[in-house]
Amino acid sequence: MTAPQISTATLLVTCPDRRGLVASLAQVLYGHGVNILDSDQHSDPVAGQFFQRIRFDLAELRTDRTTLERSIDEVAQRFDMTWRMSYSDRRKRMAIFVSRLDHCLYDLLLRHRAGELDCDIRMVISNHEDLRPVADQFGLDFHHFPISPESKREQEGSELELLAALDIDLIALARYMQVLSESFVEQYPNRIINIHHSFLPAFSGARPYRRAYRRGVKLVGATAHYATGELDDGPIIEQSVARASHRDSVDDLVRKGRDIERTVLATAIRAHLEDRILVYENKTVVFE
Amino acid sequence: MTAPQISTATLLVTCPDRRGLVASLAQVLYGHGVNILDSDQHSDPVAGQFFQRIRFDLAELRTDRTTLERSIDEVAQRFDMTWRMSYSDRRKRMAIFVSRLDHCLYDLLLRHRAGELDCDIRMVISNHEDLRPVADQFGLDFHHFPISPESKREQEGSELELLAALDIDLIALARYMQVLSESFVEQYPNRIINIHHSFLPAFSGARPYRRAYRRGVKLVGATAHYATGELDDGPIIEQSVARASHRDSVDDLVRKGRDIERTVLATAIRAHLEDRILVYENKTVVFE
Amino acid sequence: MTAPQISTATLLVTCPDRRGLVASLAQVLYGHGVNILDSDQHSDPVAGQFFQRIRFDLAELRTDRTTLERSIDEVAQRFDMTWRMSYSDRRKRMAIFVSRLDHCLYDLLLRHRAGELDCDIRMVISNHEDLRPVADQFGLDFHHFPISPESKREQEGSELELLAALDIDLIALARYMQVLSESFVEQYPNRIINIHHSFLPAFSGARPYRRAYRRGVKLVGATAHYATGELDDGPIIEQSVARASHRDSVDDLVRKGRDIERTVLATAIRAHLEDRILVYENKTVVFE
Amino acid sequence: MTAPQISTATLLVTCPDRRGLVASLAQVLYGHGVNILDSDQHSDPVAGQFFQRIRFDLAELRTDRTTLERSIDEVAQRFDMTWRMSYSDRRKRMAIFVSRLDHCLYDLLLRHRAGELDCDIRMVISNHEDLRPVADQFGLDFHHFPISPESKREQEGSELELLAALDIDLIALARYMQVLSESFVEQYPNRIINIHHSFLPAFSGARPYRRAYRRGVKLVGATAHYATGELDDGPIIEQSVARASHRDSVDDLVRKGRDIERTVLATAIRAHLEDRILVYENKTVVFE
Repeated sequence: MTAPQISTATLLVTCPDRRGLVASLAQVLYGHGVNILDSDQHSDPVAGQFFQRIRFDLAELRTDRTTLERSIDEVAQRFDMTWRMSYSDRRKRMAIFVSRLDHCLYDLLLRHRAGELDCDIRMVISNHEDLRPVADQFGLDFHHFPISPESKREQEGSELELLAALDIDLIALARYMQVLSESFVEQYPNRIINIHHSFLPAFSGARPYRRAYRRGVKLVGATAHYATGELDDGPIIEQSVARASHRDSVDDLVRKGRDIERTVLATAIRAHLEDRILVYENKTVVFE
Repeated sequence: MTAPQISTATLLVTCPDRRGLVASLAQVLYGHGVNILDSDQHSDPVAGQFFQRIRFDLAELRTDRTTLERSIDEVAQRFDMTWRMSYSDRRKRMAIFVSRLDHCLYDLLLRHRAGELDCDIRMVISNHEDLRPVADQFGLDFHHFPISPESKREQEGSELELLAALDIDLIALARYMQVLSESFVEQYPNRIINIHHSFLPAFSGARPYRRAYRRGVKLVGATAHYATGELDDGPIIEQSVARASHRDSVDDLVRKGRDIERTVLATAIRAHLEDRILVYENKTVVFE
Repeated sequence: MTAPQISTATLLVTCPDRRGLVASLAQVLYGHGVNILDSDQHSDPVAGQFFQRIRFDLAELRTDRTTLERSIDEVAQRFDMTWRMSYSDRRKRMAIFVSRLDHCLYDLLLRHRAGELDCDIRMVISNHEDLRPVADQFGLDFHHFPISPESKREQEGSELELLAALDIDLIALARYMQVLSESFVEQYPNRIINIHHSFLPAFSGARPYRRAYRRGVKLVGATAHYATGELDDGPIIEQSVARASHRDSVDDLVRKGRDIERTVLATAIRAHLEDRILVYENKTVVFE
Repeated sequence: MTAPQISTATLLVTCPDRRGLVASLAQVLYGHGVNILDSDQHSDPVAGQFFQRIRFDLAELRTDRTTLERSIDEVAQRFDMTWRMSYSDRRKRMAIFVSRLDHCLYDLLLRHRAGELDCDIRMVISNHEDLRPVADQFGLDFHHFPISPESKREQEGSELELLAALDIDLIALARYMQVLSESFVEQYPNRIINIHHSFLPAFSGARPYRRAYRRGVKLVGATAHYATGELDDGPIIEQSVARASHRDSVDDLVRKGRDIERTVLATAIRAHLEDRILVYENKTVVFE
């Protein structure tokens, strides 16, 4: 964790793997006077892709951000890089979508208050009224958008307007029990994080905990992933499990699942907020 | 663990849940002078089933085993119990089936030598010659039964004869890469333990680690289960996982999988040998 | 989990291990018409002690609770048993002690609201005012007892009066950063649960996370235990760890510690509330 | 994992953190035509130290190794770097020290055979004869150096001669139950890896598992570390734990400990062999 007063920038880069990449980028940054704090890189030899995350100190930047970005872009074009930069003094803005279950919502709000999630939480959106008091307790705006098959398109349109108006960077689906339409999801590629239960073997369809109970699983788990058009099939960010036994009732499995879900969702969101995730070929690089 | 010289018996009971069960069984055992060492019970309120495991000392048995068993059977008939008894001085006999991978085989042999698996390993059976030297090292008989589609029925017949001749109680499929026919499996209900990889989400079909790699899973796991006619779908005994990341190549996933597989298989076999597993409705009670 | 409307009782028994124990207890319960729902037992062959937990249904009790307890007491005297009984329709009353850190408090309150902790939380006691708003949010009484070396004896006296007046059964020290005096602790033997960090190797004294950081530990952990006169040395109820690495700053270790602390504390309290813990020789039996 | 035929080099660097470090090193490597495969870096802001590991392909090295090393050394002097380089075509040579327990030895030998440990195992050294047959099975030289207080100095001298004669890079203490003298350890700084049990709380002195049993611990663990003059107090490389309960006898704790010990030791050795460990201030950076 960085003390808040220091301005830092994080550069994320993806490109075809080629010689000289690292030197060129490091040279440009050095030329502008920046001090590299962290750097992680990864090469996928199968995909032939290179990934890098560089976090650096802006305190002694000799030029300005625009000039720096222009220089980076020149290197980027040379090496066919996709890149993006974020600045610590421009905090990300998050919206949280919920339905009726409160465990993930509370978990995110408490971690945020404890300083674990470096972002502004701008609002809570829900298809139910149930969790309005929780948002109130934490001084957050709460927006209710009830969804029916008939109203879905229109309500999602209103949600998108609201998200755009507040310049939202990241949407956390904190047990939002409503499938977002494909056109909605496409507005926020790799910027919507969902959490769902996971079992070995997998169970699809309704009442998964009941089915896991019937199957006698010895583990219950959860997966956090970016939402894509294909439900529950986007790039996996984080997974974890807890042990179960024959003593666990369906309710016990649900309880254990809740603990895993909230931890896994928070871990995934934290990774996103710290610009540690890169996505390619429907999977992720998550730097540590 | 019990010091080897003490003769103990383990009684496993399943029946519809009814009042007085526990008292009746305890009374019978007490009446014969046995001292209960451990007792575990479980009720499944959904299935209405009761399960009990009682391990007791035979040192001061006032009658004999036959008389004791007859008395238990009387109670059993009254309560509609299924029961079985095993004696520590009649060690279970295990056969290990392998193909070419040696990690699970070595693991079982070393744990056996370290005293972790209370059984006699009577032989190693394989569809390949590769692991004969390992069996030799540990002074075990090795039987080679190459399997082709044409020979399968006949070879399995020979295997069954051999298993019967040696009075085998338990078959460990220690990465045996050949599907046993349904008629074979039916000869050893809940007495064949298999190990296979497990992923979230699940991948069926060939080259699962490659597919898990492509999907970017963050966990690799393994499941030990009793073999049934339906491949990989029998009662789950034990499961575990290890963390994975974008840094893991397919080979790394395989390596992590190996570690999990051998641990999970050994844990499941140990539970079986200690008569801690009861099966019902295609799932298990595994007492601890 | 039991549906709330059913009245159940839980009997906890400790005694020297002797033949006929199990039969005698089961017989008494059966004689009164009770139906055993769960039973766990454990024998410690080294200590020669026997431990049992029996949970049973009171719905068809043929006598009454007083008569049942008298019968149990007769058996107890015969076998030199220590025993206690609790009834599901008499919920335990818990007080939570806190200082300034809110993560364990919130965790307990949210789990309580989610139905995971079967008790009445009667009040929050603190040596600081900071967490009063949290108690308010959940509609709980908050009592502030500032402690100085001079006032400690008197303030603890007032706390004890308040605890007695509300008939408190269990005290959760949810990161209460004040050592309770020995005379206080003695009033609630095995009824005060504390949580503290744990490291490998252990670090005593001030600023443990800083010392763990300096030592380069690869795990951070937490231990929940019953408070005794000797600080942090009472019977261990539950322990868990999380992985750490060179990338973790002191703040990161503290953050990971928080997650472990709250989970471990909640697990220990849950075990106590469900009467699953027996204490002997400064250690615990925790039935599952 | 890299296919064996490619020659790669791994450069490990430690120095005071300064601007331009990364660019300078990358520039030098690029200038010699090498292609960076992996690069990890870490800055410790408290210690003001910078750490980097760069693995690169030598296939298109335009100069030769000597020239490359000379160029690196020039940069190193400018930035006050400590550095070392290893080449994949010069495999490390490992000696394994054992006593009577075989689980860690077998684990290392099997992993080596499975291709998990990229080194040559040159010999097994022991103060007992017991494990000679294991070394034989794997075709390894076995050297017996019985140690008594009187013979210790001389025997260690002979061991050191043998280690030097075979140009040993790494010594694995695979449950070697004999304390190496300080003068021995100093000959192989950060090149001797030891494994020992770890508990929460820690237990020093004899029979630690018995003491852990008496204390009623709920976790048993193991720590792998570099050996230093101070027993069991060197830089920690890896730690892990397994759950325990009241059901575990001392033997069960020992069994669980064995599983953890072998995994933790193998993980630490693997990290060392892949040049992923840097040591400073009695702690480690372990790149992943």
